[in-house]
Amino acid sequence: MSKPLPLLTSPPPERRDAARNREALMEAAVCLVELHGVRGVTMDALAARAGVGKGTVFRRFGSREGLMGALLNHSETEWQAAVMGGPPPLGPGAPPLERLLAFGESRMVLNIKHAELIEAAGNPGARSFAALSFTTMHVRYLLGQLGVEGDLAYLATALVAPLEMIVLREQVDREQIPMDRITAGWTDLVRRVAGG
Amino acid sequence: MSKPLPLLTSPPPERRDAARNREALMEAAVCLVELHGVRGVTMDALAARAGVGKGTVFRRFGSREGLMGALLNHSETEWQAAVMGGPPPLGPGAPPLERLLAFGESRMVLNIKHAELIEAAGNPGARSFAALSFTTMHVRYLLGQLGVEGDLAYLATALVAPLEMIVLREQVDREQIPMDRITAGWTDLVRRVAGG
Repeated sequence: MSKPLPLLTSPPPERRDAARNREALMEAAVCLVELHGVRGVTMDALAARAGVGKGTVFRRFGSREGLMGALLNHSETEWQAAVMGGPPPLGPGAPPLERLLAFGESRMVLNIKHAELIEAAGNPGARSFAALSFTTMHVRYLLGQLGVEGDLAYLATALVAPLEMIVLREQVDREQIPMDRITAGWTDLVRRVAGG
Repeated sequence: MSKPLPLLTSPPPERRDAARNREALMEAAVCLVELHGVRGVTMDALAARAGVGKGTVFRRFGSREGLMGALLNHSETEWQAAVMGGPPPLGPGAPPLERLLAFGESRMVLNIKHAELIEAAGNPGARSFAALSFTTMHVRYLLGQLGVEGDLAYLATALVAPLEMIVLREQVDREQIPMDRITAGWTDLVRRVAGG
């Protein structure tokens, strides 16, 4: 009897194992960040938590910097999924102004977290254009839903700009402005831009 | 007869010479940027233009990177002087909305020029907190003059954020948006923020 051809939809067993291993490692890493912060995530701690050898962790991520880059991608992807299809008000289903305000608050928190990961990834000042395009397009879409007229591409860029890590970190780290004042400020800005 | 004490208001002759030399070198450097762009400014070209030896240029600036840093400081200082005491509408004397719009346009042009100098100074991603404080304080002052109510510190930060080099360079270099559309967008943003 001839061997059946592998189906295109199911990856070969080795690949599926690898994917499961990668997923398990990412979950363990996310867990470590939650428990001990970015500084607490070492290659040793990750190997111990995931129950694999240190060699496996190094083969997967190359270095701690590589692991930080992977955590960053993972976090960005999860957040974008929540915006596109997660529960309202961040996800679809809430009125556009509520979605926009939920987006701003959520993105601020994410950017502050990401600033630490980017630094740990050895790439200070880095800025993902893919992530930036996504946020700007989303704000532009919501401004359209709100019936705002004008150069929506520019207004979206202007609303996203004060959420940039470098702006936030200066407000939070240098000027020690509390997050709720920053959130209130952005909410007021959105109402001025959208409300006219 | 005893030697007269030097007056505190007049520096000793050596110092005055040094200051004149520095000023002449800066003027020559500014001139070279105007004529040939940042790339055209080399230590050799500067020595030739200023009519001094190459050693003098190196003693003064240390390296081409040092020269770029000095050009950056010089340009920022000149611009701040123009905002504080130059002719209207950038300087005092024009109505606050006109001054604010003149500020935005002028700062955009300056930031694009500075982006090139910062890169040439070997410090990509650098951002002067002193310059940023000045621009934010100035916008805050003008918003107050306009009678805008609310968290003026936040609104000023939000209006300055889209003028940041990283935002502008993406609009200009990557998206190829013409400067007049960017200026029009910022003008509209200011009217929405101030006009409510």
